[in-house]
Amino acid sequence: MDKLFVIKIGGNVIDDENSLSILLKQFASIDGKKILVHGGGKLATRLAAKMEIPQQMVDGRRITDAETLKIVTMVYAGYINKNIVAQLQSQACNAIGLCGADAGLILAHKRQHPTIDFGFVGDVDTVNAVILKTLLDQSIAVVIAPITHDEKGQLLNTNADTIAQEIAKAMSNSYETHLIYTFEKAGVLLDVTDENSVIPRIDPIYYKKLKEPVDGHSRIFAGMIPKLDNAFAAVDSGVKEVIIGKAEQLKELIAGKAGTTISND
Amino acid sequence: MDKLFVIKIGGNVIDDENSLSILLKQFASIDGKKILVHGGGKLATRLAAKMEIPQQMVDGRRITDAETLKIVTMVYAGYINKNIVAQLQSQACNAIGLCGADAGLILAHKRQHPTIDFGFVGDVDTVNAVILKTLLDQSIAVVIAPITHDEKGQLLNTNADTIAQEIAKAMSNSYETHLIYTFEKAGVLLDVTDENSVIPRIDPIYYKKLKEPVDGHSRIFAGMIPKLDNAFAAVDSGVKEVIIGKAEQLKELIAGKAGTTISND
Repeated sequence: MDKLFVIKIGGNVIDDENSLSILLKQFASIDGKKILVHGGGKLATRLAAKMEIPQQMVDGRRITDAETLKIVTMVYAGYINKNIVAQLQSQACNAIGLCGADAGLILAHKRQHPTIDFGFVGDVDTVNAVILKTLLDQSIAVVIAPITHDEKGQLLNTNADTIAQEIAKAMSNSYETHLIYTFEKAGVLLDVTDENSVIPRIDPIYYKKLKEPVDGHSRIFAGMIPKLDNAFAAVDSGVKEVIIGKAEQLKELIAGKAGTTISND
Repeated sequence: MDKLFVIKIGGNVIDDENSLSILLKQFASIDGKKILVHGGGKLATRLAAKMEIPQQMVDGRRITDAETLKIVTMVYAGYINKNIVAQLQSQACNAIGLCGADAGLILAHKRQHPTIDFGFVGDVDTVNAVILKTLLDQSIAVVIAPITHDEKGQLLNTNADTIAQEIAKAMSNSYETHLIYTFEKAGVLLDVTDENSVIPRIDPIYYKKLKEPVDGHSRIFAGMIPKLDNAFAAVDSGVKEVIIGKAEQLKELIAGKAGTTISND
């Protein structure tokens, strides 16, 4: 099977022109099939402020009302997505920018919650692997904005981490799929205050050990546990490995020379 | 050769939710291969006003400065494009929304003018017919936003009429291509004050006659002449026919039952 890299980049990279440029150069130079999933960044928040659209947070989550959906559609699927594509084209990387409505790529439904109305937030149902395969097999890199649709004409704001994971899972029947999450740290740290304490590899046995409480606390930062649970869910669903690390080190992450690799092997 | 319909819709349709919905239903029901090229509409102007970005007009043309480019990228390639795609998906029409940077679809260069700096306005160089053919041959309808790129990382604001024409020309080697321009009138009128005076067919001989001055004026409205010159340029470059008429009558336009058909036959 051919290798496929599914790479998720977050707002911190998108907001920093220089970091983004470094990341995209490294992405362009990856040999083989690749998908980039990007998040939002601060532009949407700034635009909402400028347009005097109040941003509602409930339980630490942003509510997507109709006006906010308009903004994230413009910023994520328009401005950010097309600028990434144009930059990749300038690096001789033939890229195509899509959102989840395009070619029926990601079908989702409006989030149901017993007490909170999240508005136009979507949870993923299915990924159309066929269209992705068609594009990848023509040596086109796919850049995906975190906007999905419900097949009834409604666009939905969807978590980019989840999109990356669902795409990696859906593609793992066709490719040896490597899912890379970039964030602000160099990887999963044994000591959250020490950037040099990156754990290079975590398998299920070691993960169990890491979660065991020492003096009432797990050995790794509690905030990492949902990320790692998701990573193991991905490898359990056929993804070859999940790599977590710094965006600026993308090349090293892919080569297994930086970050933390999560796998069942 | 298979038939291909390239349909351009303008701002007047996009700004009217009801007209757009009617148009998209008719577009979805077209049997066979189809491309929709859309223009802008008033949302970009409203957003620029809200964001206090002054819009500069020189010689009746809008100057695209960096901030205006940001807005048209967000509105055209983001909001309008993705909402059209989502609506088509809800009509069981599998559509994909692209701008000219995506998959290197439309290469352009910054407009050169001896005295006016148009800013980030692009004039079309080439159309990538291969990627369009790949998508069309998978029964995917392509929705195109009037944003192009220069292959050096720069997005460019580009006239949607020109994009529709260049795409139709590029595709006419592979398909029997029909180019449809929708606008606010029912077609080319013999008497501009009478909507019932639509000329059903214009060939080069008749066109010459229509342009002959009677009492110092051409027989057709002078404003139509550049449109018709472009239409004949398209048919001279291999496009089967150009049809001009009302967006709400798309079905009739395609069936040759409304509007004005321009061809060399």
